Amino acid sequence: MTKNKIKPGAYLYPMPVVVVGANVEGKPNFMPIGWVSIVEHKPPMISISANQGHYTNIGIRENQTFSVNTPSEDIVLPTDYCGIKSGKKVDKSDVFEVFYGELKTAPMIKDAPLNLECKVVKIVETGKGHDIFLGEIIQAYAEEKFLTNGIPDITKMKPVFFSMSDLNYWKIGEPIGRAWHIGRDYKKE
Amino acid sequence: MTKNKIKPGAYLYPMPVVVVGANVEGKPNFMPIGWVSIVEHKPPMISISANQGHYTNIGIRENQTFSVNTPSEDIVLPTDYCGIKSGKKVDKSDVFEVFYGELKTAPMIKDAPLNLECKVVKIVETGKGHDIFLGEIIQAYAEEKFLTNGIPDITKMKPVFFSMSDLNYWKIGEPIGRAWHIGRDYKKE
Repeated sequence: MTKNKIKPGAYLYPMPVVVVGANVEGKPNFMPIGWVSIVEHKPPMISISANQGHYTNIGIRENQTFSVNTPSEDIVLPTDYCGIKSGKKVDKSDVFEVFYGELKTAPMIKDAPLNLECKVVKIVETGKGHDIFLGEIIQAYAEEKFLTNGIPDITKMKPVFFSMSDLNYWKIGEPIGRAWHIGRDYKKE
Repeated sequence: MTKNKIKPGAYLYPMPVVVVGANVEGKPNFMPIGWVSIVEHKPPMISISANQGHYTNIGIRENQTFSVNTPSEDIVLPTDYCGIKSGKKVDKSDVFEVFYGELKTAPMIKDAPLNLECKVVKIVETGKGHDIFLGEIIQAYAEEKFLTNGIPDITKMKPVFFSMSDLNYWKIGEPIGRAWHIGRDYKKE
C-alpha cells in the first residue's frame, strides 16, 4: 500500500445538501450548501459555513435567524437553480412556496420534507472569507408522511447528497447495519 | 399540505461518517463522528464537534492536531467498534494500522481511503458540552486506486453515511445530475 500525498482540499464524502433560507431586505432568499453540521444536541444546534460574499449572509446577520431545509430528489432542480443564481442579481423569492414559523423572519420551503427554524447563537469567522453561523434549532417542521414514530424518516424524505470531486448530486443507497451495534464484537477482549 | 411542528432535534440527512484520530498520552485513539463539515476552502478547513467527555478531545487539545479519516464500507465494523468503546476504558491503538504525516502527532488510518491531517486553528465551545474544533487540512493522503484525475473518487472510496433517525449506516446510491448545471434553466427570466 502506498499512501500518496494529494493536494489538500475540501474533501468530505458524502456531503449533505441543504437549502439555507433567510430574509434579505424583507424578501426570502435561498442558497444550497453542503457545508453544514450538527454541533450540539441539547439544545439542538447546527452550523453552516458560507462565503461572506453571499447575499444570504446579509439577511442572516440582519435578522439573526435562518432556516435549514432538507430538499428531496423532487426539488433538486430548483435547489440547484438557487446555487447558480445570486440573490444580488435575481429575485429568488418565488422559486419556492414559503412559510414562516415562530421566529417570523426565517423563510422555510413548503415542498422540502424537513424544515429547521434557527436562531443565530454565534458567528465565527474563519478569517479567510467564510462566516460560520451557529444556530439553535428552535423548531422543526415536517408533514406526517415523512415521519416514522414522529421522527423524520430518511427513506420517506429521499434527501440528496453532494460529491465535490465529481460535482454531482447523489441519491442515498441501502442500509448497511446498525450504529453502536454492528461493531460490538469486533474485538473480543 | 399540513406542516406539523415536530420535536426540535439534531436532524441532518444524510450525515457523513468520519473517524477522527488523535494521540492521547502518546497513543492513537479513534472516534467515529457524523458532526463534521468543511468550513473553508483556501486554505481548506474542516470542523468537527465532539462532546467534551470524549477521550479523543483530550488528545486534540494536548497536541492541537487531529486526523479525519473517511472509512469505506469495508471498515465499518472497526469504525463502529470505536464508537462503542471509550478510550478511557479500552486501548484502541491497535484497532487500525496507523501512520503519521507532517504534524507527527495526528494518527491516520492506513485502511481508510482518505486521510486528512489537521492542525487546530480554533476551538469553539457550544456552551452546552461540545467542543467544535476547526482544523486546517495541511495535508491529504490517498492511495492511487481511490483517485480519478488526482482527486478522491466517491465511487472508488465507497464511503458510508449515517442516519440519526434509524441509527443505521448507509451506502451511497446513484448520481442524479450535475451541480451548478441541472437547475440552469429551471426558471427562465
